[in-house]
Amino acid sequence: MTRWTVHGERAAYQSPWVSVGLADVELPDGRRFDHHTVRTPRPAAGVVVHEPDRGVLLIWRHRFIPDTWGWEIPAGRVELGETIEAGAARETLEETGWRPGPLRYLCQFTPMSGVADTRFILFAAAGANHVGEPLDAHEAERIEWVPLPEVRAVLARGEMVDGMSMIGLLWAMSFDGLGDTP
Amino acid sequence: MTRWTVHGERAAYQSPWVSVGLADVELPDGRRFDHHTVRTPRPAAGVVVHEPDRGVLLIWRHRFIPDTWGWEIPAGRVELGETIEAGAARETLEETGWRPGPLRYLCQFTPMSGVADTRFILFAAAGANHVGEPLDAHEAERIEWVPLPEVRAVLARGEMVDGMSMIGLLWAMSFDGLGDTP
Repeated sequence: MTRWTVHGERAAYQSPWVSVGLADVELPDGRRFDHHTVRTPRPAAGVVVHEPDRGVLLIWRHRFIPDTWGWEIPAGRVELGETIEAGAARETLEETGWRPGPLRYLCQFTPMSGVADTRFILFAAAGANHVGEPLDAHEAERIEWVPLPEVRAVLARGEMVDGMSMIGLLWAMSFDGLGDTP
Repeated sequence: MTRWTVHGERAAYQSPWVSVGLADVELPDGRRFDHHTVRTPRPAAGVVVHEPDRGVLLIWRHRFIPDTWGWEIPAGRVELGETIEAGAARETLEETGWRPGPLRYLCQFTPMSGVADTRFILFAAAGANHVGEPLDAHEAERIEWVPLPEVRAVLARGEMVDGMSMIGLLWAMSFDGLGDTP
């Protein structure tokens, strides 16, 4: 068995948003050392909203921490007391001004498996209704429906660099029929 | 412009592996607050190794921080003074005992764009040569060449939950011809 033994974990930094710990781990061969952990208490969820005539609902935005610009799907942190689906739909509305139709589960994953316990969940929605200006206007430089051939070109040109957005679109193309000729 | 203004950042926790900061940010509408940052000084890189007769070189492993089991591509941290390609090839050899052939760039991304400056880079290799037992035997419960139809089934069943591995395989299927009938 290659499961590591964790003898305990002590806090190095704690906050309601992100905490860092030092886990006391032992490998199967007996080596023992401290390993950093990054823990985020809430999962995040995103939505691939697609309409045959419009394309995919995307946001062009800057991320100040990695200092990158790129296209992203609407996504954000699920709040306490909220279902994951409700959080994904709320974030879509807040960031784009469009309320997505019923959500269909796509997949979930751990974005930084070796360091963080963070969990991301992805959904698809067949369309959305326009409600108004986005509440979180500070999130997006542009909000656009991007036609599917252009979505593929955006990916190929490296203009989508957010991992969650990439998994959403690539998964939808490989497993949810996105881009299939009708 | 929706680029946020960053007035400064102070350290909350520092280590050579991962650091946490508090950035003093101002939104375009004038709201100002502290935003957590997670910074990792080194990028990580992974390789999708594929041979037509064998399939894809994958590792079945446990991740103690998110407490998940799943199939992953070989990947790891690029060390100081090492090129990203060299780090990706070294990690593949250390984790699997197979030395990959020449690497072909696939894509790069930020796995947690809203929180971390971490950067992941992915490559493909057409085959690998067996060198011996993996140096990092503690990384993997199983090391296997998984045939392509089974790789698709692994993804569909949710038996691959590591984001970097998912992007590597999904990207290779959508943009690098992985799985195309010859």
